[in-house]
Amino acid sequence: MGNEDIEWDPYDPNCPSRQLVDRIGDRWTVLVIGVLSDGPARYRDLADRVAGISPKMLSQTLKALERDGLVVRQAFAEVPPRVVYELTEAGQTLRPVLLELERWARKHMPGVLEARERYDASAQG
Amino acid sequence: MGNEDIEWDPYDPNCPSRQLVDRIGDRWTVLVIGVLSDGPARYRDLADRVAGISPKMLSQTLKALERDGLVVRQAFAEVPPRVVYELTEAGQTLRPVLLELERWARKHMPGVLEARERYDASAQG
Repeated sequence: MGNEDIEWDPYDPNCPSRQLVDRIGDRWTVLVIGVLSDGPARYRDLADRVAGISPKMLSQTLKALERDGLVVRQAFAEVPPRVVYELTEAGQTLRPVLLELERWARKHMPGVLEARERYDASAQG
Repeated sequence: MGNEDIEWDPYDPNCPSRQLVDRIGDRWTVLVIGVLSDGPARYRDLADRVAGISPKMLSQTLKALERDGLVVRQAFAEVPPRVVYELTEAGQTLRPVLLELERWARKHMPGVLEARERYDASAQG
């Protein structure tokens, strides 16, 4: 309730919105939300699609997203037990934002790599 | 040149675009680009406006952005010497993307804090 009235300001070091920017801009968050935006997924599917993520990092990322109310974890009492992760409504609003980030990175990668080569060459000279 | 032909894929652990997502989603990058989007700024201005950033972290962030070709550093031979940082054309294309990230964080902060309280309360129970 009272939270609605606060002016959140990531430029203020004491504001929790500063942390949130970090969290959602993290590579694993971007990639996990990307996979879940195609629909609910099991842990195994996520591990396969986000190649190279360690089990520990995937569990941490999912737990942080669940705690922030962006992902919901559903456990089905089956044999073997089935656990499915799904974006919440709030999590779905994050998707287009992170998709733009992903698109920007794909599009500007060549320019960034060229800039790095130039920078490193001039730093040596 | 050849870089243009590559399919950049942040889901591939060997693709440099995966790093780039991290870098640009970093809180300091988001805030520094935010300040520079108002126009060129001196080191001192940046340190003032991004409250709480350490000098070391500000220097590192600026150097990384310069190396990636997103920020340009201009030194004027004056007394005392004046150094000004400015977004490049590529850096300017990043601005709307990061502004959306910042907006999302401001808007969803109350919901995220409430979700955390619920999560932490149920974890204790």
